Amino acid sequence: MPQSVAGPEIERLIQLLARMPGLGPRSARRAALQLIKKRDTLLGPLAEAMRIAAERIVVCSSCGNVDTSEPCTICRDGSRDASMLVVVEDVSDLWALERSGAVSARYHVLGGVLSALDGVRPEHLNIERLVERASDPAVKEIILALNATVDGQTTAHYVTDALRHLGLTITRLAHGVPVGGELDYLDEGTLSAAIRSRSAF
Amino acid sequence: MPQSVAGPEIERLIQLLARMPGLGPRSARRAALQLIKKRDTLLGPLAEAMRIAAERIVVCSSCGNVDTSEPCTICRDGSRDASMLVVVEDVSDLWALERSGAVSARYHVLGGVLSALDGVRPEHLNIERLVERASDPAVKEIILALNATVDGQTTAHYVTDALRHLGLTITRLAHGVPVGGELDYLDEGTLSAAIRSRSAF
Repeated sequence: MPQSVAGPEIERLIQLLARMPGLGPRSARRAALQLIKKRDTLLGPLAEAMRIAAERIVVCSSCGNVDTSEPCTICRDGSRDASMLVVVEDVSDLWALERSGAVSARYHVLGGVLSALDGVRPEHLNIERLVERASDPAVKEIILALNATVDGQTTAHYVTDALRHLGLTITRLAHGVPVGGELDYLDEGTLSAAIRSRSAF
Repeated sequence: MPQSVAGPEIERLIQLLARMPGLGPRSARRAALQLIKKRDTLLGPLAEAMRIAAERIVVCSSCGNVDTSEPCTICRDGSRDASMLVVVEDVSDLWALERSGAVSARYHVLGGVLSALDGVRPEHLNIERLVERASDPAVKEIILALNATVDGQTTAHYVTDALRHLGLTITRLAHGVPVGGELDYLDEGTLSAAIRSRSAF
């Protein structure tokens, strides 16, 4: 935008910032100015952190997590329950589960879900390696922690079929009312699932 | 957040991203993952653009604009009308006016507005240099393009007083209905101003 008034360096910075998720052209300009104002405390350090990340981050060949070591910190962590594998769609889901502290096991990142619409087929996902890892005699249970969307559930069914011959316990996350959630705002499907899976009080 | 599961490099990247305007802790994690996924097309180039910006960007000692040259591109542009100085609060306002193409003059960035609440006093703003620049015999008009806020208007009055002895024409932006705006959504002050400044149709 300020093509003629600011140098090409600023323009390029704005263009690249606008490609970040959550930033549009207008907020990218605002972000660029803020960064320039905090040149020494934010712009410089952020540039360096990005350079290091770009240089060192690798995708774990075992589970698909991103880390600066190979295999990743989780795969190397011997204190985790080796009898379970938690299958997730994306690294962000892995991070979310780790924040919850709900499970201390290893993960398997599929790298997406099957989608006829987006042309995502089984060979595009990290399923082959999952079957390989699930064949380890130590593994007893596969937890399918996939999103409760149509594509997520289709993928859950496909993965279940691919693992069936191993005779493992395959589980999925419970459906129900989110903690802190109000019934009035929930869809019928969630409410039906919450009623079906009700428990003694 | 993913302190134990991702390397310190990723954690630091997320922390710095969270300090960018428009990004919170959650969106910073999402942004970090997107950047890592687009390592070669976005993360690397953005790191480099930021490094160059941090290295080369300077604040123009004449007008307060940010650029990679000193004096800035606008101050060096001989084709601009030298008889006018447009006074703005921030560089973002300068950029906004340049995008509009409404005026081809030089600017003066105050670097803020007077604010008793935030403790911003005249000596914190770039006013002394404005008086100096306005004393140039070539300058005939000062356009106060400050925000139509209480602080903006206070600052406009202060600047007017500081320039009074030079005997220049001092103007301010017109108030009225924004182009494309709907009356129903406008405040009473704007509507009153639009009625007062009505023009023949």
